[in-house]
Amino acid sequence: MNRLWGSSKTEETLPDTSLEVYLAERPETSITSKTFGVRRVGTPALNELPAGKSVVRVLYVSVEPAMRGWLSTRRSYVEPVEVGAVMRAFGVGVVVRCSQRSWIGQLVFGLYGWTEFALVDTKKLQAVNVPRGVPATAVMGILGTTGMTAYFGLLDVGHLKQGDVVVVSAAAGATGSAAVQIAKIHKCFVVGIAGGTAKCEYLEKELGIHSVDYKSEEGVDAGLKRVLDGRSIDVYFDNVGGSVLEAALRRLNNGARIVICGGISQYNSKIPPPGPRNYLTLIANRASMTGFLLYDYESKFPTAFRDLSKWVAAGKIKAREDVVVGLENAPEALQRLFDGKNIGKVIVRVAEDGEALTGRAQAKL
Amino acid sequence: MNRLWGSSKTEETLPDTSLEVYLAERPETSITSKTFGVRRVGTPALNELPAGKSVVRVLYVSVEPAMRGWLSTRRSYVEPVEVGAVMRAFGVGVVVRCSQRSWIGQLVFGLYGWTEFALVDTKKLQAVNVPRGVPATAVMGILGTTGMTAYFGLLDVGHLKQGDVVVVSAAAGATGSAAVQIAKIHKCFVVGIAGGTAKCEYLEKELGIHSVDYKSEEGVDAGLKRVLDGRSIDVYFDNVGGSVLEAALRRLNNGARIVICGGISQYNSKIPPPGPRNYLTLIANRASMTGFLLYDYESKFPTAFRDLSKWVAAGKIKAREDVVVGLENAPEALQRLFDGKNIGKVIVRVAEDGEALTGRAQAKL
Repeated sequence: MNRLWGSSKTEETLPDTSLEVYLAERPETSITSKTFGVRRVGTPALNELPAGKSVVRVLYVSVEPAMRGWLSTRRSYVEPVEVGAVMRAFGVGVVVRCSQRSWIGQLVFGLYGWTEFALVDTKKLQAVNVPRGVPATAVMGILGTTGMTAYFGLLDVGHLKQGDVVVVSAAAGATGSAAVQIAKIHKCFVVGIAGGTAKCEYLEKELGIHSVDYKSEEGVDAGLKRVLDGRSIDVYFDNVGGSVLEAALRRLNNGARIVICGGISQYNSKIPPPGPRNYLTLIANRASMTGFLLYDYESKFPTAFRDLSKWVAAGKIKAREDVVVGLENAPEALQRLFDGKNIGKVIVRVAEDGEALTGRAQAKL
Repeated sequence: MNRLWGSSKTEETLPDTSLEVYLAERPETSITSKTFGVRRVGTPALNELPAGKSVVRVLYVSVEPAMRGWLSTRRSYVEPVEVGAVMRAFGVGVVVRCSQRSWIGQLVFGLYGWTEFALVDTKKLQAVNVPRGVPATAVMGILGTTGMTAYFGLLDVGHLKQGDVVVVSAAAGATGSAAVQIAKIHKCFVVGIAGGTAKCEYLEKELGIHSVDYKSEEGVDAGLKRVLDGRSIDVYFDNVGGSVLEAALRRLNNGARIVICGGISQYNSKIPPPGPRNYLTLIANRASMTGFLLYDYESKFPTAFRDLSKWVAAGKIKAREDVVVGLENAPEALQRLFDGKNIGKVIVRVAEDGEALTGRAQAKL
């Protein structure tokens, strides 16, 4: 365990109340101002610690597109968040109460929820362990589910080979920007699809790949044709669905692999919009479309973590963070994803003293 | 080479003309009465045989859904049939002119087209070789592309395992009925989807599997739910697309494999209809949708032929033929597929004396 947080081993004084953001009502389509509620609750359990439990003061929480699914009772891979319950979310925090004194002051990572303080099984405490110079918040992003989703999606599901022609949608987002850089490390011809000039500039100038602006007048189909310049797609990593997926299906190489990571254009519809009209191109191209869940790769997480850490530490992967300040703004932060406003991983700073943590490390990235 | 045809080694007298069916105009959507033309052409080449060529008198020709694609200039795996050219088709015939006398009278199989007489490279002559009691026409069906498509689609693309829950659409069709029986041989729980009570009775009573009538009042979704009775689908072999594919996507098991063999509901549209709205179920179920082309498996054809022959000879696969009489009726025979009128493999009898051949063997099936 590399110990990043502070020097004090003294237990902090805990407040009598804790702020939390809970699910107020299930959204039928898009998330609205009524979907989540913010409340301050008493924290007797924090100050009278049950046996086997620890208290984590949360510094940062994550928002991610998958959360839209967690709000829905549609058949899925996880139980939906209950109405009235604290919103489920990954977070980074510091242990402030624990019967095992060695944990006090330790930076930890877990599914703490959108809350200021989390009561956690001591046995499940997981220390943050990032390479020198990398911010602890990276465990919610490039070294966490985000980066690993890109890693297993491309390498395992997509069977990425050196020199492949790789197209990634939502390429300026957290997972997409990880995917394009992993493809670049594998010497692929990489095209990122994103909306707007700012994102496309980021892809071209900062990440050094080709870009297609699906919001441009040219449109995604013509843009993709122009940038591919006669090439066909070996791996398409899709986060979007809709017309972007159709454009990719139109330009598949023989044996192409479409990795269905997400479909953010589809998530907010009560009745899903039509699927790709041209999915039959899969036949002539002997191509596949495959969905996957990160959690199936748990046994390989250490390998992914090691590779990603190495690449981040070597500057081969740049991981931008889009920090929203204030736990009460977590719903708005989540909405940024659906509005396509973010570049990189969106995280929410819950505690003011969290700033030092990421601020410091970000500078070194 | 097992020699099935006749006893005479005498060359037949050839007529001065030959009937053929050609592509008159490309259909924009459905095939119409103007799509194909019938013409009688002079046959000087047949009677003045060029070096290295043989003449095949065609007895039967095949019709298949893939032909709709061969008429289109859309990017595909084969060149389109040219307007004015004889329609491409597999056929079974007898060699009536050949400089190598041993070929005369031999039953052969090849891509002869919708014609009475075909001029063929002698080197490319391929003798029909079917087990005793199996009709030669089986090489266009269960022992040919039809059966092999089901074989490789299920076993190779679909990674069929013993005991899997297998659903097949267009299950009373040529490929579908082969697929359900191959699945049954592998001790799977097999459901066939077909339109109409006659087809469903065929599936249940003759092939011994479960059936769902997508034309029934109940509809394909409720029907599939009822018949699966709590089971989820491991392999879905799709020949149809549209709402039938959507119904299957709704009931996938973890790790399900969707084999995209065809999409007959989609072929006749100028602009393809919407794809499956719920393709994102691939994610939560870690499932895949994979297209394939039979021609990629050419090196394994002998294995497939051996297995299929064994199963047919043992009565484990019943292969029904739907015989249309008269070459001039080949376009109508093709239309039967799109109208869903056929049960089993549709073939067209070109020569009257072909009847003895299949008639005889059919009785033994």
